[in-house]
Amino acid sequence: MNPTQVVLTTYDWVPDMPRGYVRDIRIRWLLEEIGRPYRVETVPLREKTATHFARQPFGQVPMIQDGDLSLFESGAILLHLARGTDLLPSGDDGARVAQWVIAALNSIESFLIPWAVAKFFDQNQAAAARQEELLRPRLSQLQDVLQDRDWLVGDRFTVADLLMAEILRIPAEAGLLDDLPRLAGYLERATSRPAFTKALADHMAHWQAADQTQSAPA
Amino acid sequence: MNPTQVVLTTYDWVPDMPRGYVRDIRIRWLLEEIGRPYRVETVPLREKTATHFARQPFGQVPMIQDGDLSLFESGAILLHLARGTDLLPSGDDGARVAQWVIAALNSIESFLIPWAVAKFFDQNQAAAARQEELLRPRLSQLQDVLQDRDWLVGDRFTVADLLMAEILRIPAEAGLLDDLPRLAGYLERATSRPAFTKALADHMAHWQAADQTQSAPA
Repeated sequence: MNPTQVVLTTYDWVPDMPRGYVRDIRIRWLLEEIGRPYRVETVPLREKTATHFARQPFGQVPMIQDGDLSLFESGAILLHLARGTDLLPSGDDGARVAQWVIAALNSIESFLIPWAVAKFFDQNQAAAARQEELLRPRLSQLQDVLQDRDWLVGDRFTVADLLMAEILRIPAEAGLLDDLPRLAGYLERATSRPAFTKALADHMAHWQAADQTQSAPA
Repeated sequence: MNPTQVVLTTYDWVPDMPRGYVRDIRIRWLLEEIGRPYRVETVPLREKTATHFARQPFGQVPMIQDGDLSLFESGAILLHLARGTDLLPSGDDGARVAQWVIAALNSIESFLIPWAVAKFFDQNQAAAARQEELLRPRLSQLQDVLQDRDWLVGDRFTVADLLMAEILRIPAEAGLLDDLPRLAGYLERATSRPAFTKALADHMAHWQAADQTQSAPA
C-alpha cells in the first residue's frame, strides 16, 4: 500500500522577513528526503481561525495531516514522519536521534529565539548583545560535539541533523558561525543536500504565489 | 531478563532555590511510575568536569545510563524510558504523546524560563511582567485543550502529562494558575499520584544528604 499523501499546513501569507524560515521548511525538507508525496494547505496568518486553534492550540504552524493523525510541533512531526526511514534508526541510535531533535529545539533554538526577537524584531541592540552572550557558548559547545564527526548520531545524516542544520541557518546568516568553522561546515554539508534545495525553492514559491492572491496589510 | 538498573545523574548539590525543581525530578517520577529500579550518581555543580561535558555537551543535568545508552535532555530520557510501557502508547497515540512532550518543552516551558529568570533570578519586575504577558496566553490556551478531558492524549495519564504537570508546578506556585481552575485541577490530578510524592521525597532527601557532605559556597 502506498502511504497516504501528507497534508502540510502553513500560513496563507507572511511578510518578507520570515520567508525562508517559516517552519514548514523543516517538514518540506524531510518529505523531500524520504520521497513522501504531500500537498500544502493554508491557514490565515492575520485573522487566526477557531479551526486553526482546534488543531494547534497555540495558533502556530506547521501542522500535518497523515491519514487519521493530525500533528503539530515541528519536532514531533519530524520524528513521526521519519519513523521507519533511514533518517531515524531503531534501537539506541533512535533514542540518540530523538535526544538531538529535542536538544536542537531546547538547547539551541530556545536560546536563539530571544536573541532573534531582540535583534530583528525589537531592534534592541543591548538586549540582543545580552542574549548573544547566552547563545554563543551553546554554539561553541555544539561545535565541540562535531569536532571529530560529520553528523550528530552515528556516521550518517539523520532527522536530528536536518532539524539542527535548519535551526543554525539564522545564526549563520547573522555571522555567529564565522568563528566556528566546523559548525559552519556541518551546516553547509546538510543544506547542500538536493532535498533542502528543492524544499526551499518550493517554500519560497509558496510565498511568491501568495503575493498574487493575498493583499498585504496596509 | 530483568531490565538493567538505570543510573540517573544529577548535581552533587544545589542552593535552596531550585530544590524540588532540578529536572532529575522528572526522571525520578517516571521511574517510580513504571517501577524501574535506579540509582543516583552525581556531577559537581560548581566545577563542572570534562567528563560531564563529554556526556552532556551543554553541562546540564539530568543524564541517564541505561545499559549501553547514555542519554541527556529530560524529554528524550522520558520518551526513551516510557517506550513499551502504559505511559507511551504505540501507533498514532504515541505520536500524539511525543507531540505533547515536545509542546510541554517548546510551547510552555520555553515561555516559562525567561519569565522565571526575570522574576526569581534577576528580580527585574518590569521584565518579568513583559514575559508574563507572553506566558499567560499559553497557559490559557493549554487550559482550553483540557476543557473537556482529564489528560492530554486519550483518556489516561501518559508521559506527556507527567512532563506537562512537572513544568506547570512553578507557575502554579507563583499564582499564575489561580484564574485557570481546569489547569490547576489537572496539575493537582497529576501530582497527587503516589509516584510523584515518592519521587519528590527522594529528590529532596538527596539535597538534604548533600548538605551533610558538601560545603556551601561562601
